[in-house]
Amino acid sequence: MKSYIKLANKFEEISNLNGTLEILHWDNAVIMPEGSSNDRARQFATINSLIHQIMTSSEVSDLIEDSLSRQNDLNEWQKANLSLIKHRWIHANAVDQDLLRKFTLAGTECEMRWRTMREDNNFQDFSIFLSRVVELSREIASAKAETLNSDCKYDALLDQYARGKKSKDIDIIFSELRNFLPGFLDKVLEHQSSKGAIKSPDKKFPIEKQKSLAKKIMKQIGFDFNKGRLDESMHPFCGGTADDVRITTRYSEDDFINSLMGVIHETGHAMYESGLPFEYRYQPVGEALGMAVHESQSLLLEMQVGRSREFIKYLSPLLVEEFGEDDSFEVDNLYRLYNKVERGLIRVDADEVTYPLHVIVRYEIEKKLIEGEIEVKDLPDIWNSMYKDLLGADVPDYKNGCMQDIHWTDGSFGYFPTYSLGAIYASLFYEKANSDLPQIGEQIEQGDFSAIISWLRENIHSKGSLYQEDELLEKVTGEKINIDKYKKYLTDKYLA
Amino acid sequence: MKSYIKLANKFEEISNLNGTLEILHWDNAVIMPEGSSNDRARQFATINSLIHQIMTSSEVSDLIEDSLSRQNDLNEWQKANLSLIKHRWIHANAVDQDLLRKFTLAGTECEMRWRTMREDNNFQDFSIFLSRVVELSREIASAKAETLNSDCKYDALLDQYARGKKSKDIDIIFSELRNFLPGFLDKVLEHQSSKGAIKSPDKKFPIEKQKSLAKKIMKQIGFDFNKGRLDESMHPFCGGTADDVRITTRYSEDDFINSLMGVIHETGHAMYESGLPFEYRYQPVGEALGMAVHESQSLLLEMQVGRSREFIKYLSPLLVEEFGEDDSFEVDNLYRLYNKVERGLIRVDADEVTYPLHVIVRYEIEKKLIEGEIEVKDLPDIWNSMYKDLLGADVPDYKNGCMQDIHWTDGSFGYFPTYSLGAIYASLFYEKANSDLPQIGEQIEQGDFSAIISWLRENIHSKGSLYQEDELLEKVTGEKINIDKYKKYLTDKYLA
Repeated sequence: MKSYIKLANKFEEISNLNGTLEILHWDNAVIMPEGSSNDRARQFATINSLIHQIMTSSEVSDLIEDSLSRQNDLNEWQKANLSLIKHRWIHANAVDQDLLRKFTLAGTECEMRWRTMREDNNFQDFSIFLSRVVELSREIASAKAETLNSDCKYDALLDQYARGKKSKDIDIIFSELRNFLPGFLDKVLEHQSSKGAIKSPDKKFPIEKQKSLAKKIMKQIGFDFNKGRLDESMHPFCGGTADDVRITTRYSEDDFINSLMGVIHETGHAMYESGLPFEYRYQPVGEALGMAVHESQSLLLEMQVGRSREFIKYLSPLLVEEFGEDDSFEVDNLYRLYNKVERGLIRVDADEVTYPLHVIVRYEIEKKLIEGEIEVKDLPDIWNSMYKDLLGADVPDYKNGCMQDIHWTDGSFGYFPTYSLGAIYASLFYEKANSDLPQIGEQIEQGDFSAIISWLRENIHSKGSLYQEDELLEKVTGEKINIDKYKKYLTDKYLA
Repeated sequence: MKSYIKLANKFEEISNLNGTLEILHWDNAVIMPEGSSNDRARQFATINSLIHQIMTSSEVSDLIEDSLSRQNDLNEWQKANLSLIKHRWIHANAVDQDLLRKFTLAGTECEMRWRTMREDNNFQDFSIFLSRVVELSREIASAKAETLNSDCKYDALLDQYARGKKSKDIDIIFSELRNFLPGFLDKVLEHQSSKGAIKSPDKKFPIEKQKSLAKKIMKQIGFDFNKGRLDESMHPFCGGTADDVRITTRYSEDDFINSLMGVIHETGHAMYESGLPFEYRYQPVGEALGMAVHESQSLLLEMQVGRSREFIKYLSPLLVEEFGEDDSFEVDNLYRLYNKVERGLIRVDADEVTYPLHVIVRYEIEKKLIEGEIEVKDLPDIWNSMYKDLLGADVPDYKNGCMQDIHWTDGSFGYFPTYSLGAIYASLFYEKANSDLPQIGEQIEQGDFSAIISWLRENIHSKGSLYQEDELLEKVTGEKINIDKYKKYLTDKYLA
């Protein structure tokens, strides 16, 4: 036990350093003056290097080994914690410090170049920087695959974001979606257009009023403003720590929908963070269970709850109260507006039906890039032909095509599939929640989110990282991932 | 040279960690939700402990020794840097980690208690917590005095804020002020009242307008908003890093003077931070030279510049522009309003004439407390009798007396005298600046601060911590500390 306690203390220290990084990141995105990035970069580098020093110290390595040999003295949570610690240790120690440094530098450079080159639609020059990032990512993936005894390099990256998940399992799921969605999309578009025109709001939405509406709804959902904040940033996110959850959004005077749905989405992430098990708060086992489950929490609140007819019934009078009467605020129109499906080019603007298709494009491409089956120069051709095939959309240029995303620039390969896994989990969780607590929908119509939130608290949030992803899904829903149910959810919602 | 470079890298790391602490502190004071203090306290503790680990590592100790033995290879700046590093090393290593932990806990507890007990005017209970802090501060002072070979415990604490400064030197200066100021105060009050009533502004000052005025003046002074910010906090301060200087103020709709002068004061601190030598930015020698010189920079801008007749001439039309006409905005009236002297009880509200008296009370008491000549229970009696003697003021209760300040609660003993040393330096620096550049005053009248700022940049800011405090004063003014000149400054200003 003594070595386990010492080890847990080390990881508590790392947790405090990660919390510090969260605040620095938040500050960076929300507050920091533009000219101050040099000092901030130094702070990030120093803290990351201190975390790496702890993770790669012989002390931690010895403590892990000793703790593993005395596992029988540990309870279920402690065992899971030890296993997570070992998992992190493997990832941290698999890669040479020098390679990591080169990778971080290349990523920073590429991200910076992307900002201007995307504006200029300049793939030619951008591809030089991205190629360097891909090359180093491959080296990292190789090193990790070797340590993990995996014959798939991409899986070694995926494992960072979804422990134990394999691309061959994702392939099965995504091929089902690939078969289903394009045809389904045709039907949905036809169905939606058969219902006639949707009225768009025809007024300005003052930002102060949008803020106050967003906060009102966050409070109703259960967000605790005594331990969290809502602010503005270019790219909305949820950050901070469990006791200090900070979400952001961006506002436009011409449109309140994107911002409000963004706030509800981030509130889903926030509720997860604040609902994690208090007793293990500063340990890996007390953290959120990977990116797919995190995304399931935000999507459930945004898609299943926030874009439901029940929620719209609650929202409609609030909109009138805040912004005055508008024809488009009528419930049925608002519902259609909120669930409009389009063959769009931009992932972050995509609806629930097309979103998985955007993800599949990225997943298939990034897997091939990491495995060395394609090179960066091949990117635009593959991208454009996949968009034609899957979405029936013509990509007119790089900046609305393969250069639209910042995600790959810093070498973050391996987490795109978690977005769509999260969407599937969300639909499965919500179905189970409604069968457990049939009052959820009625409550939402009254602006009461207590049933759904307490169900999530009990079944998901409070479990932290005690189980693996597939295990959690099975414990909660009673079965393995069920794509038919997900298809049925989409069909019921979009072809009704 | 190799060991010096390694050592400097270690201190660059510490500088980045200190920069991180600065941002966390700023966030704490400006942004953080109330309920999030637990996570923040953990972040502070972890980073402070990592700094302490570096400072007390055998590696750093060996590097210092080795660098000192090869000093001849170092340039003047590097030598000064090494000496500062050694100074910090001495302070960090003088005190046992366990004692430090107890001290921090006692300080946090006492500060927390003070917040409510001050409201309740409850010295009885408060004294228990403060006594504990004093006791542990004495232990720390003893340990440091032993390492520093000093026979004065208080000096060992003072040395943390003003390297090498001794209380016997301060005693000489303060006894001159003690002899001079009470009689001078009588004369000033008589002189000011003989001039008739001062008109006070008789309107509301919308906070948005105060902010825009404050920013306008900061920009004129030379504050770079691309590398800094102005925000609001309960207790105004200047924090952040050289590339990211963050000052705060607080606003009241009923009064713009306090806030505006506060902003100018903090801008003085900010200009110092941003003007420090770029080449040594992340090393001790590139940092500000102790608290007295820092305070001289803020006070010079607030007292010598901001409350001068020239500045008021510049300010008066700006006030009209921002807030509309008001009788009190007339230059002569405004000047008198800005320089009104009072027998006040509260240090932070004190004017330039009485401020040193408030400081002398605290200095004499804290010295006796640390030396064990008095105990916490004796505090109110000494406090009240000194306020009667020095300021001619009757202290009605604890909360306007010895419990007014948060400063002692966390065990920060030893820096009160630097406030008044700073005030003296400010007057001496400003006199020299004006004799070097006679256009300073005329420029200020036009809202042009370039001459005074560039003089400060060249003579003070750019020197960082290359010299000791007394050395800098002598290099800049050509003489040792000159109290007669300071008295003359006060006399010229307040009896004119």
